[in-house]
Amino acid sequence: MYSFKNDYSEGAHPRILNALVESNLVQEEGYGEDRFSQKAMELIKERMGRTDVDIHFLSGGTQTNLTALSAFLRPHEAAIAVSTGHILGHETGAIEATGHKILSIEAEDGKLTPSGVKAVLDAHIDEHMVKPKLVYISNSTEIGSIYKRSELKQLSDFCRENNLLLYMDGARLGSALCSKENDLQLSDLPVLVDAFYIGGTKNGALIGEALVICRDSLKEDFRYHLKQKGAMLAKGRLLGIQFLELFRDNLFFDLAMHANKMAEMLIDGLNQANIKFLTPSPSNQIFPVLPNALITELESKYAFHIWEKVDSEHSAIRLVTSWATKEEMVEAFIEDIRK
Amino acid sequence: MYSFKNDYSEGAHPRILNALVESNLVQEEGYGEDRFSQKAMELIKERMGRTDVDIHFLSGGTQTNLTALSAFLRPHEAAIAVSTGHILGHETGAIEATGHKILSIEAEDGKLTPSGVKAVLDAHIDEHMVKPKLVYISNSTEIGSIYKRSELKQLSDFCRENNLLLYMDGARLGSALCSKENDLQLSDLPVLVDAFYIGGTKNGALIGEALVICRDSLKEDFRYHLKQKGAMLAKGRLLGIQFLELFRDNLFFDLAMHANKMAEMLIDGLNQANIKFLTPSPSNQIFPVLPNALITELESKYAFHIWEKVDSEHSAIRLVTSWATKEEMVEAFIEDIRK
Amino acid sequence: MYSFKNDYSEGAHPRILNALVESNLVQEEGYGEDRFSQKAMELIKERMGRTDVDIHFLSGGTQTNLTALSAFLRPHEAAIAVSTGHILGHETGAIEATGHKILSIEAEDGKLTPSGVKAVLDAHIDEHMVKPKLVYISNSTEIGSIYKRSELKQLSDFCRENNLLLYMDGARLGSALCSKENDLQLSDLPVLVDAFYIGGTKNGALIGEALVICRDSLKEDFRYHLKQKGAMLAKGRLLGIQFLELFRDNLFFDLAMHANKMAEMLIDGLNQANIKFLTPSPSNQIFPVLPNALITELESKYAFHIWEKVDSEHSAIRLVTSWATKEEMVEAFIEDIRK
Amino acid sequence: MYSFKNDYSEGAHPRILNALVESNLVQEEGYGEDRFSQKAMELIKERMGRTDVDIHFLSGGTQTNLTALSAFLRPHEAAIAVSTGHILGHETGAIEATGHKILSIEAEDGKLTPSGVKAVLDAHIDEHMVKPKLVYISNSTEIGSIYKRSELKQLSDFCRENNLLLYMDGARLGSALCSKENDLQLSDLPVLVDAFYIGGTKNGALIGEALVICRDSLKEDFRYHLKQKGAMLAKGRLLGIQFLELFRDNLFFDLAMHANKMAEMLIDGLNQANIKFLTPSPSNQIFPVLPNALITELESKYAFHIWEKVDSEHSAIRLVTSWATKEEMVEAFIEDIRK
Repeated sequence: MYSFKNDYSEGAHPRILNALVESNLVQEEGYGEDRFSQKAMELIKERMGRTDVDIHFLSGGTQTNLTALSAFLRPHEAAIAVSTGHILGHETGAIEATGHKILSIEAEDGKLTPSGVKAVLDAHIDEHMVKPKLVYISNSTEIGSIYKRSELKQLSDFCRENNLLLYMDGARLGSALCSKENDLQLSDLPVLVDAFYIGGTKNGALIGEALVICRDSLKEDFRYHLKQKGAMLAKGRLLGIQFLELFRDNLFFDLAMHANKMAEMLIDGLNQANIKFLTPSPSNQIFPVLPNALITELESKYAFHIWEKVDSEHSAIRLVTSWATKEEMVEAFIEDIRK
Repeated sequence: MYSFKNDYSEGAHPRILNALVESNLVQEEGYGEDRFSQKAMELIKERMGRTDVDIHFLSGGTQTNLTALSAFLRPHEAAIAVSTGHILGHETGAIEATGHKILSIEAEDGKLTPSGVKAVLDAHIDEHMVKPKLVYISNSTEIGSIYKRSELKQLSDFCRENNLLLYMDGARLGSALCSKENDLQLSDLPVLVDAFYIGGTKNGALIGEALVICRDSLKEDFRYHLKQKGAMLAKGRLLGIQFLELFRDNLFFDLAMHANKMAEMLIDGLNQANIKFLTPSPSNQIFPVLPNALITELESKYAFHIWEKVDSEHSAIRLVTSWATKEEMVEAFIEDIRK
Repeated sequence: MYSFKNDYSEGAHPRILNALVESNLVQEEGYGEDRFSQKAMELIKERMGRTDVDIHFLSGGTQTNLTALSAFLRPHEAAIAVSTGHILGHETGAIEATGHKILSIEAEDGKLTPSGVKAVLDAHIDEHMVKPKLVYISNSTEIGSIYKRSELKQLSDFCRENNLLLYMDGARLGSALCSKENDLQLSDLPVLVDAFYIGGTKNGALIGEALVICRDSLKEDFRYHLKQKGAMLAKGRLLGIQFLELFRDNLFFDLAMHANKMAEMLIDGLNQANIKFLTPSPSNQIFPVLPNALITELESKYAFHIWEKVDSEHSAIRLVTSWATKEEMVEAFIEDIRK
Repeated sequence: MYSFKNDYSEGAHPRILNALVESNLVQEEGYGEDRFSQKAMELIKERMGRTDVDIHFLSGGTQTNLTALSAFLRPHEAAIAVSTGHILGHETGAIEATGHKILSIEAEDGKLTPSGVKAVLDAHIDEHMVKPKLVYISNSTEIGSIYKRSELKQLSDFCRENNLLLYMDGARLGSALCSKENDLQLSDLPVLVDAFYIGGTKNGALIGEALVICRDSLKEDFRYHLKQKGAMLAKGRLLGIQFLELFRDNLFFDLAMHANKMAEMLIDGLNQANIKFLTPSPSNQIFPVLPNALITELESKYAFHIWEKVDSEHSAIRLVTSWATKEEMVEAFIEDIRK
């Protein structure tokens, strides 16, 4: 059984484990004040060409989202997200548990647009309703699409004109930035969004997300929020060492490129077999529509999610590739489809 | 500079890193449903001689405390803790942030007693006050003391008679259970408390605490709370593999015994130098009272916390030993004191 | 300018003020333990033919909803409501501020059905999503419709089969129960729902809602929640005296019947003028669709809400009648429409 | 049985009821936007000689405290209060339920001092602890003491130097300002504190507190918080009309003066009978220490709280006077003591 179920089925890239082993007995300060974390922050800032951002390392995506949003919003302020947004349907009400409503917008391609946000603003006119304040987007999105630079720029401009914060969930930012269709640079992000995170867990780390706070007014006292939400590890070095290894050279991007390459191979192979897709996706999640009988057959050899029923005889499945996906297994999968 | 500052200055015990390396490319389910986590749970249950408890792995102590207490308490219910309790003063209001008050009791030795709890109950008599519901204790405590079996039994009986939950923070449970003065067994805990956790972070793991829920009524839907509070790791295997290694044989206890042995060496050496202690502590945290001038001198070679001022010329410092503490550094420290 | 804007434009029915005046200098216990409140609870229970329910008086609808739902739900549990539900869009995120998500269902007529609820249950399958637990309905609804006995029975049965709580917001329960189309009795409610409130504010009281808790497991410690949420008035008598007056005889229902009669007069008059309605509504809120030019004209003499744009030349307005609505003003309004 | 149990045993001052009756059928906007509320705000501002403050009317003290503090504080920020502070022990964890810890200081006379606050600041040094941000005081305090102008000035100066907010709970502000020992003016308050409330419930209103927000940065969007916390009454006029009547002339102060005068009569009478007091209190709550046998006897004719045991044969009781306290009952009580 080989799994295309997600991008966190394996441990970590061997270089990361190696870095943990090598640094293991060095004594360091706790709570993220170790030299590895400090150095990792510097490297990431360099990579973005910005020294005026704050970086914090957290363990996972839900934890990052809930810590950031609850720190950024006042009690009456709400977030806006597309209906497929991870915080809306897949984080067990983590944001609401900190007291904040999330306002939902339908969007076929998983992406928010100024007109979608505007519709929410127009519907929230006084103190009997929450005050929309933060726009949550994911890149790549939950259905594999990515934001083009111009799309993000328009959204960013709209948010600034309307006094809204723009936050990007980057659980799969590596795959987004390494997509063939991408025209965004990491260095564009601090210019265009107010805060975002660079996902490590789904791109080769054991655990770890790097939250980047770009807007000055959001930076103050953030470490208090880390601690209060249980997000400050005693051995913060565990996160620092991993990001140090990922950003010491091009490893972070190399891993994402491998994941994307494997996804492209799958797309090509499926295209050749005349398989259609539920939605186009230029990143490491793809959604082919297959006959149910074929799906049943595939399930005996591969693990994957059945995403949704398409018609009485077809369903879309989700295939996810990662830094660890083996080319021969991709080939085997395509071969099995062809047969 | 050698650090006696805490028990999380180094990475993990080499066997743990080795286990991570060896298992690295095995594909596993996410979110704690991997085989390593399942196996680790079984081993811990075996060690306690109990199959009817639920075990969940979390990343750190604050996270475990806030997830457990907010899951166990209704909105109007409060926790009770000694004034030195970790949740009271060192978790940035994490419990209050989930909506619950903590009622504080003074206790010289860091331990709660039935009479202390009774005083709180007597003072909370109607709906204008919170309803005390959960008794929080730490073992070992924040000042290094440990609960004797009879003490814990009395507290447990009192809690049951008064419809209170008893929760034990076991961040340093290993050191407590391996103390020379200890007469508690791991298998006693599910009998005497309603929930507790076995601390990994401070006893040789990279990160990780094993929450054990003993009372049936507290078990339901706990995984929802893990997810909601950002405590469910995508790569839950990271926690499972570590606890599997710690409990595969006697490693967890061996590491704690080493930490305690190093503390005992320090105590013996300091005793011989006629140093007094702020408080007796039979575990891996000790609190010698030293002349300020000596402290300043020691600070040039060792890292430690200055705990509190004792008089105009003396202060207590905190020395913490761990699985990683080197015997030769303990000897060197004692030698430096003697001089 | 005469207002049809809402049912809380005036003070209270004169009998209520009179009761306040007459009882004014009697000394009473505070916090709802006065004899007036106790007597009012008894009368309401008698009216329902049930002595096994708990009744609490609160100041307003949002306060009642947030106090009840936060007391009834555990942190990971969510409410379900139609998209027009008051708690969803018109209470400034009050429920979310207590930590709970509300799951939204589209419903043309403002009413929830078993199939709607089932769709939500089917979509919430594991601990990555909130757990739907409480079904929130309003009667009459936010768009004036009412639940027939059979509809409520089906919903109630479905909830019980699926371990869901059923909660009814009765801000306008008087108008619903006195509607010509109604076949529900007040005594049916404790049989069919787990908790509901009888709205006083919009039916002749100065302020006040009577929360009725029917399910035993929801009753415990509720007064703690009242106090914690700021809902326990020092002079609880203010609420008790009013409900005592409303339920001493048939006043509560008489006032609702007047409101409904005024709405029927408006409907009849508008029907005769060939005015269509946005939605049928057999209670005290009606939604005629009028030419925009006419609306502008009416606005010089009457106050009302413009509810929504229907087409480029028409909009729906909301007219609300109450215990205080004057028949001559209804006639004048109809006359103005006819012209 | 005559009650000295509290200052909310009766309804409202007759002039207030009369104002409600007279205004009853006037149609007004809801939610505090009625003309009565607007006019009442103006009158209170005039009385303080300040037009640059914001005023909001709420129903009760707990509601006002929780709405204000949760609006003013970020999640990691805490309040500071004396151990007898109402928010600490008598509001069922209402502040903690909004996510904020309250740090407690012992104070014999119920009053906070700069040195007490400084001790808290000195003990909260980093992000592992909450950040003290708001100083909560009551005037008069929970044990009847009042702040002198110089004391409040020193506390205010200290707060500003240390970037702390100063909030005054004025549930019994009328009695404090009308105390013989008082040298504060209502107009001093906006100069010295950042927000405070003027208590109506305990000074002749049916319900109602007037929250005055003085610091600009705390004003924004406050009405959202009112609505979210269930504190915005549909018939906001109920609060406006009462405060309009209280501040139309000197009624608010006249009522407080009567309460104080009755307390002074009690003190004089008890002094003449050689009764001692637990604590001096120049406002409408007094705490005589009486033999237990006498207390039992008095309980057959009078209602009051037994405050605390003093020794094996004596206890302190609390006597509270109000706008409604009858002079002849005070005389009767003194007479009964003398016998």
